[in-house]
Amino acid sequence: MPAPIQVWTWPTPNGHKVHILLEELVEEGKPIPYEVVPVAIGKGEQFRPEFLAITPNHRIPAIVDPEGPGGRFPLFESGAILIYLAEKAGSALIPADPAARYRALQWLMFQMGGVGPMFGQYGHFANYAAEKLPYAIERYTNEVARLHRVLDKRLAESAFLAGDGYSIADIATFPWIRNPARRNVDLGQYPNVQRWHDAIAARPGVERGVSILAENQRQGTMTDAEREIMFGKTQFQAR
Amino acid sequence: MPAPIQVWTWPTPNGHKVHILLEELVEEGKPIPYEVVPVAIGKGEQFRPEFLAITPNHRIPAIVDPEGPGGRFPLFESGAILIYLAEKAGSALIPADPAARYRALQWLMFQMGGVGPMFGQYGHFANYAAEKLPYAIERYTNEVARLHRVLDKRLAESAFLAGDGYSIADIATFPWIRNPARRNVDLGQYPNVQRWHDAIAARPGVERGVSILAENQRQGTMTDAEREIMFGKTQFQAR
Ligand SMILES: N[C@@H](CCC(=O)N[C@@H](CS)C(=O)NCC(=O)O)C(=O)O
Ligand SMILES: N[C@@H](CCC(=O)N[C@@H](CS)C(=O)NCC(=O)O)C(=O)O
Repeated sequence: MPAPIQVWTWPTPNGHKVHILLEELVEEGKPIPYEVVPVAIGKGEQFRPEFLAITPNHRIPAIVDPEGPGGRFPLFESGAILIYLAEKAGSALIPADPAARYRALQWLMFQMGGVGPMFGQYGHFANYAAEKLPYAIERYTNEVARLHRVLDKRLAESAFLAGDGYSIADIATFPWIRNPARRNVDLGQYPNVQRWHDAIAARPGVERGVSILAENQRQGTMTDAEREIMFGKTQFQAR
Repeated sequence: MPAPIQVWTWPTPNGHKVHILLEELVEEGKPIPYEVVPVAIGKGEQFRPEFLAITPNHRIPAIVDPEGPGGRFPLFESGAILIYLAEKAGSALIPADPAARYRALQWLMFQMGGVGPMFGQYGHFANYAAEKLPYAIERYTNEVARLHRVLDKRLAESAFLAGDGYSIADIATFPWIRNPARRNVDLGQYPNVQRWHDAIAARPGVERGVSILAENQRQGTMTDAEREIMFGKTQFQAR
């Protein structure tokens, strides 16, 4: 038995990506043993020295592979972790065919650089910020809608983001599309996204992935103490 | 002579990444012939049907490789384009050593998901938005500082982001660090970033890369017509 990979994580969309991938690898018959290390980000556990030693960015998810390249190997950024784990497992979730592989990387980048940060800004201004700023809420409402429309256009021409096959690009994007009510999105307006969402949500690996640490999931409110930890001076001064 | 790759682009940080990589490949003796197709995003050329056929996201950069995997191959998202071109060329800019390769992907993702979108939001609220919102400007000023600090911490322990060797992670990040005055950043506060910046800025491939289409570079102002194209209904309704 290889030593388990440590997954430093929390039940947020970026954490879910890694949880889903690891459970999909079980389904594929190419499991990577892992153990979950919870990092309660609302309580500031991302600033603990053990975690800062793994990632100077103090954001979940991060992993430590005790048997990685060159020995103990820490890695952060969910997109890099998906590539690393899928390649380590020799999984079809990162396609072998070059065209499909680069398309998977393209849509993974679209999630990392577009969907993730922009949906995150929507959440900040619409749900979390103490001050409600109509200009900012409108800006990110429009961007959330625009990004859903881009996905819908893509999914009108193929079953999954990279093509016919389900891949790490879908795994990265799905956690941001479930719970559309949090972003005031009606998925029915994006029929191709809806079809894709429903197909992914029904997968056993996905069901298990999104249930990891689920008892800690945020319900949409934030206390002033959490706001200070996540948006205040704590963030800015962490060393 | 292979048919040149078309680079649909504009002199913005995300465009510069690809320009720099292509010129660094020349320096490395592994050139990929290319031709530049300018997309004047302030004039709305990103909504032309020819461009929408390449990328449903209507954002530069995008490439078309007439001799890609499976024939004519379009690709968008700057991070995916850097991986594609570096691998196509067999370049050391995507390290062969597995540990260095995953670290390059990690910092590339940090740029794609952190530095790029957050510096972009700073630019929006501080420089481009018609309305000045102190809350939003402060939020992104802090995040720009935080991200510089993370980079400084990393560059205190190694010469380049992935380790000893210069890689696509540095190429992706550099265009967002040059011109610090645009973000009201004093690079002198981040001595390791400053050292890294100066080393990269002096590279001949970088000098040539940032000069591509330079005559079209924005000087920091934006007209109402440009605002409408880039942040208004045009964006939201493009098909
Ligand atoms: N680009 C990063 C983003 C990671 C990220 O933003 N994680 C959030 C949770 S989804 C976090 O750790 N936040 C803690 C904080 O902001 O202090 C990735 O994809 O891994
Ligand atoms: N994540 C994308 C971002 C691309 C992007 O935002 N490009 C900007 C220029 S730097 C653009 O094309 N803007 C045109 C518009 O907003 O309409 C990438 O890295 O390629």
